[in-house]
Amino acid sequence: MSEQYTVGVDFGTLSGRAVLVRVQDGQEVASAVHDYTHAVMTDSLPGGPVLPPEWALQHPQDYLDVLGQTIPAVLRQSGIDPDQIIGVGIDFTACTVLPTTRDGTPLCFLPQWEGTPHAYVKLWRHHAAQPQADRINAVAEQRGERWLPRYGGKISAEWAIAKLLQILEEAPQVYAAAERFLEATDWVTWQLCGAEVRNVCTAGYKAIYQDGEYPSPDYLAALNPDFRDAINKFSRDLHPLGDRAGSLTEAAARLTGLNVGTAVAVGNVDAHVTAPAVGATRSGQLVAIMGTSTCHVMIGDTLAEVPGMCGVVAGGITPGTYGYEAGQNGVGDLFGWVVKKLTPPEYHTLAQERGLSVHELLTELGNTQAVGEHGLLALDWLSGNRSVLVDTDLSGMIMGLGLSTRAEDIYRALIEATAFGTRVIVETFNASGVPVREFIAAGGLIKNPVLMQTYADVLGLPISIAGSSQAPALGSAMHAAVAAGAYLDIQSAADGMAKVTRAAYTPDAARHAAYTQVYQLYKHLHDLFGREDQTMKTLKRLREDAVSRKQRSEVTA
Amino acid sequence: MSEQYTVGVDFGTLSGRAVLVRVQDGQEVASAVHDYTHAVMTDSLPGGPVLPPEWALQHPQDYLDVLGQTIPAVLRQSGIDPDQIIGVGIDFTACTVLPTTRDGTPLCFLPQWEGTPHAYVKLWRHHAAQPQADRINAVAEQRGERWLPRYGGKISAEWAIAKLLQILEEAPQVYAAAERFLEATDWVTWQLCGAEVRNVCTAGYKAIYQDGEYPSPDYLAALNPDFRDAINKFSRDLHPLGDRAGSLTEAAARLTGLNVGTAVAVGNVDAHVTAPAVGATRSGQLVAIMGTSTCHVMIGDTLAEVPGMCGVVAGGITPGTYGYEAGQNGVGDLFGWVVKKLTPPEYHTLAQERGLSVHELLTELGNTQAVGEHGLLALDWLSGNRSVLVDTDLSGMIMGLGLSTRAEDIYRALIEATAFGTRVIVETFNASGVPVREFIAAGGLIKNPVLMQTYADVLGLPISIAGSSQAPALGSAMHAAVAAGAYLDIQSAADGMAKVTRAAYTPDAARHAAYTQVYQLYKHLHDLFGREDQTMKTLKRLREDAVSRKQRSEVTA
Repeated sequence: MSEQYTVGVDFGTLSGRAVLVRVQDGQEVASAVHDYTHAVMTDSLPGGPVLPPEWALQHPQDYLDVLGQTIPAVLRQSGIDPDQIIGVGIDFTACTVLPTTRDGTPLCFLPQWEGTPHAYVKLWRHHAAQPQADRINAVAEQRGERWLPRYGGKISAEWAIAKLLQILEEAPQVYAAAERFLEATDWVTWQLCGAEVRNVCTAGYKAIYQDGEYPSPDYLAALNPDFRDAINKFSRDLHPLGDRAGSLTEAAARLTGLNVGTAVAVGNVDAHVTAPAVGATRSGQLVAIMGTSTCHVMIGDTLAEVPGMCGVVAGGITPGTYGYEAGQNGVGDLFGWVVKKLTPPEYHTLAQERGLSVHELLTELGNTQAVGEHGLLALDWLSGNRSVLVDTDLSGMIMGLGLSTRAEDIYRALIEATAFGTRVIVETFNASGVPVREFIAAGGLIKNPVLMQTYADVLGLPISIAGSSQAPALGSAMHAAVAAGAYLDIQSAADGMAKVTRAAYTPDAARHAAYTQVYQLYKHLHDLFGREDQTMKTLKRLREDAVSRKQRSEVTA
Repeated sequence: MSEQYTVGVDFGTLSGRAVLVRVQDGQEVASAVHDYTHAVMTDSLPGGPVLPPEWALQHPQDYLDVLGQTIPAVLRQSGIDPDQIIGVGIDFTACTVLPTTRDGTPLCFLPQWEGTPHAYVKLWRHHAAQPQADRINAVAEQRGERWLPRYGGKISAEWAIAKLLQILEEAPQVYAAAERFLEATDWVTWQLCGAEVRNVCTAGYKAIYQDGEYPSPDYLAALNPDFRDAINKFSRDLHPLGDRAGSLTEAAARLTGLNVGTAVAVGNVDAHVTAPAVGATRSGQLVAIMGTSTCHVMIGDTLAEVPGMCGVVAGGITPGTYGYEAGQNGVGDLFGWVVKKLTPPEYHTLAQERGLSVHELLTELGNTQAVGEHGLLALDWLSGNRSVLVDTDLSGMIMGLGLSTRAEDIYRALIEATAFGTRVIVETFNASGVPVREFIAAGGLIKNPVLMQTYADVLGLPISIAGSSQAPALGSAMHAAVAAGAYLDIQSAADGMAKVTRAAYTPDAARHAAYTQVYQLYKHLHDLFGREDQTMKTLKRLREDAVSRKQRSEVTA
């Protein structure tokens, strides 16, 4: 096994990254990144037309280019012979979906559709299907659809059914031509192994597949009579994670430089594949992938309906267990907001003089204070709340402001607020029969030790830290090893290949006690404005009224 | 009368300003400013010792220097003969108090006390007597002192009794040596006319003089047994505003260049003297002096106890009426906070390029939006709330924050919040039988037309604007005219000399309606956090705990 390697490819929002990993111990031998040529298309397609607000498209050719650029690059860099590469696996952002013909050709590859926005990939953060999502939720609630509680009572506008319904209602000819509608992770897997092999994870989290069924034709018809047979564009033939989807085709071998017949793993999702990459394959190990936003994934042995979670899916993280997902919409985004929108010139000058980023400077200045000393309490809802309130109409709040309040105070209060938000999620898991036993952090924010220590102190839990800076790609390479038969299952692969520093941060008892006092106030305001008091929502409605009043008067003028 | 002039001198926080005014029509012929040499002493006395936090002292010599510099200057500038100057009047910040000997010599002028902080003038914003104020309030409430409701139920740490009690308890030898304890306005008047002539205004608002009595000896003894006879250091011989305190002494004539025997008016307070300067001498005319903070004064024909007002005093603004006072702790201060603490570099650069102040730029950028468009709602309590909640433990709050929130949005939301705070005060007057019939604005903020229009729109009232940029000094000159007998009373003087632009801003009906919707949310949060929910106060307590914990650990370390 010391001679065996696999390749994992992680498809992100702006680029794809391959790592070549030794199967025996998970050593990352080489890695390569390729930026998408079209990045995220939000304003227009290349050569037009212009896109409406809230759109976010991608071009599937960019994904093929990642395969064609990065895999040959890691082979070259490492000098490893393709004969030693026993498998390849991928993970993707989700829900990132595209319409194709029956043979998997993206509609946007066909000349007749290349000028049609709805023929392209809809990226996870395409938010233009909100009207459809609102109807999906209202009708589901009204009909008492039993799958709704599995998603914390709310289906997101980001997910597959909403995006497909938008196509039907805005471009019925595209809807008719789309014989298949699938996650990009499954489409790329198809390109590798030559067969449509879909994974259970995205079907469950993003396409409402629960207990062996998608939403019923009657429900779909209630959304729109022409939507009754939508599920025919999906597939009921779903494969567990770590399964072998097939073998590398000749075309894919030419593209990647790997051997024909190399094992191809079933496609996966970036957040979920991170769990085994950090050794979280047992129940109660919560993995937080912390970046601009945070995604939490955790395995449970039993099925529980956890209030306000993003979803629970059988086999959604590892086969034979229940995969739970939660999330916080704004985390790193919030700190970026302070740096960009609220930090005076002298901080920028000082940071430059000291060779620090403004983030590092604000973190350091804020950290000289005792717990509670800045006097601030924030609600971290600047992008709404994804868990456990599941409400995009909520907004950010800061209390305790005084004339002495500075940017570093707000920066620190927002770090604390996101930690309090995480504590609400952990406590909700605990109270719902899916107790959190270990907290493991991955993602870009683990670089900030002050933030990590704050999380440990707020949660009162030790925090383990991902040992790889490319954990998703490592996770994909682990799934490739399982698909190739080098390990019996993903748990064994994790035992051999995962990278994690256990209890890298441990809570300070005094700071935990002090934070718990502040957390009680946070929880009080969380429940007050999240569940009882309508002020935030009314404020949002007044804002929408103001914007539409203004638009009307501009049209008139 | 066209040949007659008076001089008004306005003593501010950092400087004193004299204006020479024509009695016939209030024309301001000349003005001069003198900066206090010692400004505000917050860190130490000149040559030591160091002052504790929250202290703010002044040096009485600076006040004499103002008289000696500015009055000769306006005489020189104008070329008016001292024979034509019929009177001089002054106004002052309050409660600004000092201990003196029986003959009016400030203790700090005596060599044995010149190194003793408690021997100096305590400026209005000396905040170190909070423990004394807390006891003053607790004991008054417990004993059911009937004067307490006249002050909205709360005596401020800024006022005379608290400051004198601090002297007793921290420097009993100074307390013993202080045969008199008086407002700086009365002390300067004494220097002009050679006699201790105290005014009803400061006695009423700052020294708890109500219905012909100061607090009783029994009450004072309950605060501290040695405080029983404190009132002996005050005076029961109080004079109405506009009265002639006396005639200019020889020494004062030498100092000022005015004639011996010139009429000297009874001392006054800057906010209260502004009312006649803008023609507000009739009931229902509310004058808002808007600067870093806002002071509201209004005349009422009847005595009402208005919840949460700073005070109501018989003859406190004009003789024969009731003078009401309210206030907002933080107004211009809040906008300065945004500019200084939360505005990124590109705004500073743009303002410089366009030749604007950052205040002007933020005002302009914020003003391009429709009412409600920024989606924010703020509570303007960054320095606590002076009216109507009377609670320094409250703090500022901003709700509705999103990743798109910018400095100009926060700036505008704080302008609106201060306007909402004003509307609460106006509505409280209206509901208490002292209806507001006209809103007149004075002070530095009247230079901002967007802010003024916002106030008109929020209040739904026309706003009249002070016609003089040195309204307090003009008001003092008017009182001097009354003291000299040129006018029968201050109302007649105001008819002849006041400067105001009536209804300079009128409310827009649509914007008033839109603001009223936001105001209802403001009022809801105002009552929620100001009266019911303890979160803000608990947060403040946690902050105090944190600071004292930190101080202890620093002492230990």
